[in-house]
Amino acid sequence: MISSELASKLKFLEEGSKILFIVIDGVGGLPLPETGLTELETAFTPNLNKMASRGITGMSMPIAPGIAPGSGVAHLALFGYDPIKYAIGRGAIAAYGVNLDMEKGNVAVRVNFAGFSPEGAVMDRRAGRLSTEKNMKLCKMLRDIKIPGVDIIVETVLDYRSVVIFKGEGLYPNLSDSDPQRVGKSIFPGEIKALDDESSSMKEIAIKFVNMANEILKEGAKGIADLENDQHVGILTRGYSWRPEIPSMKDLYKLNKLGAFATYPDYRGVAKIVGMEIAYTGDELEEQIDVLEKSIDKYDFFFFHVKKTDSAGEDGNFHKKVHLIEEFDNLVPRLEQLDIDVKVVTGDHSTPATFKGHSWHPVPFVLNGKWCRPDNVKGFSESQCEKGALGQFQATEAMLYALGMAGRIAKFGA
Amino acid sequence: MISSELASKLKFLEEGSKILFIVIDGVGGLPLPETGLTELETAFTPNLNKMASRGITGMSMPIAPGIAPGSGVAHLALFGYDPIKYAIGRGAIAAYGVNLDMEKGNVAVRVNFAGFSPEGAVMDRRAGRLSTEKNMKLCKMLRDIKIPGVDIIVETVLDYRSVVIFKGEGLYPNLSDSDPQRVGKSIFPGEIKALDDESSSMKEIAIKFVNMANEILKEGAKGIADLENDQHVGILTRGYSWRPEIPSMKDLYKLNKLGAFATYPDYRGVAKIVGMEIAYTGDELEEQIDVLEKSIDKYDFFFFHVKKTDSAGEDGNFHKKVHLIEEFDNLVPRLEQLDIDVKVVTGDHSTPATFKGHSWHPVPFVLNGKWCRPDNVKGFSESQCEKGALGQFQATEAMLYALGMAGRIAKFGA
Repeated sequence: MISSELASKLKFLEEGSKILFIVIDGVGGLPLPETGLTELETAFTPNLNKMASRGITGMSMPIAPGIAPGSGVAHLALFGYDPIKYAIGRGAIAAYGVNLDMEKGNVAVRVNFAGFSPEGAVMDRRAGRLSTEKNMKLCKMLRDIKIPGVDIIVETVLDYRSVVIFKGEGLYPNLSDSDPQRVGKSIFPGEIKALDDESSSMKEIAIKFVNMANEILKEGAKGIADLENDQHVGILTRGYSWRPEIPSMKDLYKLNKLGAFATYPDYRGVAKIVGMEIAYTGDELEEQIDVLEKSIDKYDFFFFHVKKTDSAGEDGNFHKKVHLIEEFDNLVPRLEQLDIDVKVVTGDHSTPATFKGHSWHPVPFVLNGKWCRPDNVKGFSESQCEKGALGQFQATEAMLYALGMAGRIAKFGA
Repeated sequence: MISSELASKLKFLEEGSKILFIVIDGVGGLPLPETGLTELETAFTPNLNKMASRGITGMSMPIAPGIAPGSGVAHLALFGYDPIKYAIGRGAIAAYGVNLDMEKGNVAVRVNFAGFSPEGAVMDRRAGRLSTEKNMKLCKMLRDIKIPGVDIIVETVLDYRSVVIFKGEGLYPNLSDSDPQRVGKSIFPGEIKALDDESSSMKEIAIKFVNMANEILKEGAKGIADLENDQHVGILTRGYSWRPEIPSMKDLYKLNKLGAFATYPDYRGVAKIVGMEIAYTGDELEEQIDVLEKSIDKYDFFFFHVKKTDSAGEDGNFHKKVHLIEEFDNLVPRLEQLDIDVKVVTGDHSTPATFKGHSWHPVPFVLNGKWCRPDNVKGFSESQCEKGALGQFQATEAMLYALGMAGRIAKFGA
């Protein structure tokens, strides 16, 4: 793990070498009871297996044993940040993900549209599978909300997700969410709590905002969201947060320019927060690779994110996850041909389809590069990579492996 | 690891799931030169091997490489406490082990009866295999000791072991032991040292107590302890200590009720110190399991301690240790049938019979549970578990594995 003490004593070299860092979201899995094989073990992945044969492998532990991470902290760990120290709020991730800039003292929060029962319980966490276009209409209504002393920015993220930034004096972000996380439960706006004394004025603003938003949407969203008869649209708020104070990867590792090839807003948000440029691409993997191929001269670090595997795991769809892994494997030859010195494939965490959620299980990891010492592992899967030469290691060490193999870390000590 | 910083940021869930944590004391071993097999590798253990086949395995490192632990710190590490920070004194462990409560400022010390030569050297560390009944008689004599300004509690522990608590004002515990640890050596009471300035008044009290005890016992214990002709009974004192200030496992992990199924006082002491309830059982393994079976509804965490393997190792009795492991293995099916979500079997440390003492060698570890990702290990032994998917890990991480697999740790971060 790159402790700040170690990092401060290392000298990173500004070599011309390039690193491709591929994160297949939630790729780690658990065996299907009928077959005893995980998603990766079930999938036909000749190209990833070739990378494993040529490379060095191991298992990456996202945070610590037993601890399932959110995607934000899991990515931060892979990028070499102590995920405990730099736990970044959901609101800030969402804001950066849609290219909003935050100033010091601004408070951002993720706002999800949802369907509520007449009694105020959350019944449909996706607001009738709200489309991004409809979301834009709802956000437009919320822009009418005025609260004295604060400027309010409302922006659509994706589907039922949006983000709000509050700008004003003396705003502290330590508030509880207004999201009960479970269907059938309610947290009324008045129940939002200030978790420290400084945040009490922000608490009043948050309560006002949620109340006013719910009032506007109750009638205004009728006929827009496709809800069950007795439901109405309201909002859930999660992750009130300040702008994160975090060193950029550029400064940390003396990289010249970093590009993020990610289609989902939250991953773009994390990437932007750590100092990457967002390379806008279409939503499909092939389009991501098209743009990547054209950007080879532009960056020396490429973060490539594969999202859909995680969603399939969360939905409990084992076979879809297998299929998505195979779909990615098909495209690996294009990535292999790129003139990039070090190539890493791993996941941010496991999302076993049998578990239907993020889990703590360590994740297969493979690194290809001229200076890696290949091990005997011939396949990219849990049961194979756990026999790899890297053993089980902390995700926060991954960047050291990548940078070292790219010749970008100077000899340490006399 | 569970650093206090990490722990403070984790949210433990009060789920209904249950954890059984089985510690086979000193179970790790070293190969017998004639066979090249350790105690576990020699023993016939079909039931433990079945657990290994079904579960996830690894090697638990009690403290750090090269460091052989006492049983107290080794258990604390397994329960997730930093054993360096929370090194609990032997005196306090002994006191809690016989259900004595300590108040803040009390000093407890382990007092062992021993046989001394006329010159004052320790000759028989078990005082002629003193029985618990005879110990009680000796303790009764020591209760006559009066020292102005302190109340003195004397209590029998087991065999030749007892415990003394000093209650008074301004008592600090940092004293050296009066136990030379080796036969043929002596530490006279006057040689007890205060290790800091504050402890100098307690030093005077300790010296007085040991002198008076030795005087009383020299004549009084004649005909009670079964010693060699020229020997007389005296006491050795070890581990002067205050009441430990340590958070309870209940608070740390949001467990509801923890039960300790341990027959030896010191293990009961450690368990009580970390907030477990002592489930009193007979001395035999079968009786321990009888009570455990009847207590399933009572607790959500069960600490089950197997003691005799350690003693056989310390005695250098390889075959007895093998036999005791087989005896435990025979009872594993009863433990497997219990309706408990996560089951762990490991040891607190190694006690190789060839080494005749606690050692630093890592200890086989197996976890069974619905959400474990089974590895390819098929047997519970050193040579097999060291190929397990958990690799070699810190004992302090064991609780995170158990709690995570039991679904008791919330997702971390956005």
